[in-house]
Amino acid sequence: MDPIRIAVVGMGKIARDQHLPAIAGDTAFSLAATVSPHDKGIDGVPHLESLEDLLAKGPAVDAVALCTPPQVRYDLAKMALTRGVHVFLEKPPGATLSEVDALTERARRAGASLFAAWHSRFAAGVAPARAWLADRHVTSVAIVWREDVRVWHPGQAWIWEPGGLGVFDPGINALSIATHILPRPFFLRRGVLQRPENRSAPIAADLVFCDTAGTKITMDLDWRQTGPQSWDITVETDAGTLKLSRGGSVLTLPSGTEHSEDREYAGLYARFATLIRTGRSDVDTSPLKLVADAFLRAKREIVEPFNE
Amino acid sequence: MDPIRIAVVGMGKIARDQHLPAIAGDTAFSLAATVSPHDKGIDGVPHLESLEDLLAKGPAVDAVALCTPPQVRYDLAKMALTRGVHVFLEKPPGATLSEVDALTERARRAGASLFAAWHSRFAAGVAPARAWLADRHVTSVAIVWREDVRVWHPGQAWIWEPGGLGVFDPGINALSIATHILPRPFFLRRGVLQRPENRSAPIAADLVFCDTAGTKITMDLDWRQTGPQSWDITVETDAGTLKLSRGGSVLTLPSGTEHSEDREYAGLYARFATLIRTGRSDVDTSPLKLVADAFLRAKREIVEPFNE
Repeated sequence: MDPIRIAVVGMGKIARDQHLPAIAGDTAFSLAATVSPHDKGIDGVPHLESLEDLLAKGPAVDAVALCTPPQVRYDLAKMALTRGVHVFLEKPPGATLSEVDALTERARRAGASLFAAWHSRFAAGVAPARAWLADRHVTSVAIVWREDVRVWHPGQAWIWEPGGLGVFDPGINALSIATHILPRPFFLRRGVLQRPENRSAPIAADLVFCDTAGTKITMDLDWRQTGPQSWDITVETDAGTLKLSRGGSVLTLPSGTEHSEDREYAGLYARFATLIRTGRSDVDTSPLKLVADAFLRAKREIVEPFNE
Repeated sequence: MDPIRIAVVGMGKIARDQHLPAIAGDTAFSLAATVSPHDKGIDGVPHLESLEDLLAKGPAVDAVALCTPPQVRYDLAKMALTRGVHVFLEKPPGATLSEVDALTERARRAGASLFAAWHSRFAAGVAPARAWLADRHVTSVAIVWREDVRVWHPGQAWIWEPGGLGVFDPGINALSIATHILPRPFFLRRGVLQRPENRSAPIAADLVFCDTAGTKITMDLDWRQTGPQSWDITVETDAGTLKLSRGGSVLTLPSGTEHSEDREYAGLYARFATLIRTGRSDVDTSPLKLVADAFLRAKREIVEPFNE
């Protein structure tokens, strides 16, 4: 089978740190081009300033990976899908739920594959956590996601703009794991979002969800964490405690701790190749829906200005 | 066929102004009970303080209409659906999208009918507007929904609380019409929400949507309107201008203006009876999704305090 010719659109940190190495390591793909108005690309690979240029002038591509900020994702995805080009959407899949619905319908009509990628679902501990929880009775869940925004998102102005998710940009990773491993759907009951007075997006959130059996799920998000960082999900069950830490890569069960090699983006690209080869899409908006619900339902507080 | 025995839960303004007269006027229903901890009910009809009491002690009901504030809707709907009782949800259908999804799944499993009612879709001008637009090319849409909150929502504290929608409580009516009459789906591009510094919900919003063909749709919501009130949707097309005014009840086409008798809640109850008789549900969350998207995507401004 010929490799899938893919272009990476948006050459920021996530493209260079994750997408390019994952594509280079997967024989199902060949990197056909990179696209960015702000970047020179990489040696030996055609580089274009815009997706329009790429689609007009070539080189030919079968698929694109959109690694731009979410605010401009819809127009690019629409342009690609309209030409039958398969689309990989970095998380979050869009700036609104309704635009992602519109893309899903467009992909269906175009016969192209659309993949809303949730990289944390491919962290090493997540699949075994899901399997272990499938036949357990969950009694409570605590999500603690506390990191230092200055360390992890330096200079990313878009993340604070409307359509950027603020502290939910990392927080949605936790929600993508929780919606995947917990045996029941859950939804927000109450919460508080804290927004710096000089920013458009929240810097912290304190949320209480419950699942359809009434089990409580708490979520503590904070971007002001210095010192030790936390990306932990603790699930209490009738068979003891499950803990996923380091963003899903380390799984601790009553029987002990498993450390496995992390292959998040390799897993995503393998999945994307399967979707393309089998003519399917995979667009699960449930993590973004929970974030939209938090923006809709939570109480809002203004906190002190944040300056980088 | 025996009438459907229905209880009205939540005896506020909308229950008394609309639900009770609509039920009284529809032979498909008989009013079996009213439920409210804050009210004495109406002469000759059993009254209970809670839905739990009703379901435990009777009288027997086949259906409930939930007219409470949205923040407490989920628990009531879950309780009813779990017992196979059909549920009519006043708009908005819930405080979050995910809880409405959970109710939809619960109704499906219980074999009960769930109806997310959008009363404005049953305004007199809406069905003919939808029919007229079906084969027109739309070039622009302007929604202007400006009313005086002191006149229309006196003392409704819940509307300002988290989970109340603020100015989107009327605004979602416009969105329920627009999503119904416009030939293409649409989604938010940008916007501004204004929230009084002493309230949790917006008092005004200025939004720009576009549809999947790129047509611009503007929305101007304001709760500070004194003097003439506006509930208008103007649609420019290749065949001239369509205008829905007075919340959908008056339709003006290039051929002239139609005034028809308004039967919004009569239409809703006829629809609910059909759903129950045919074993179906009707839960369209698209208007609430657009509101959640606005809360997620729009820029936020703090404005002067609002005191009633």
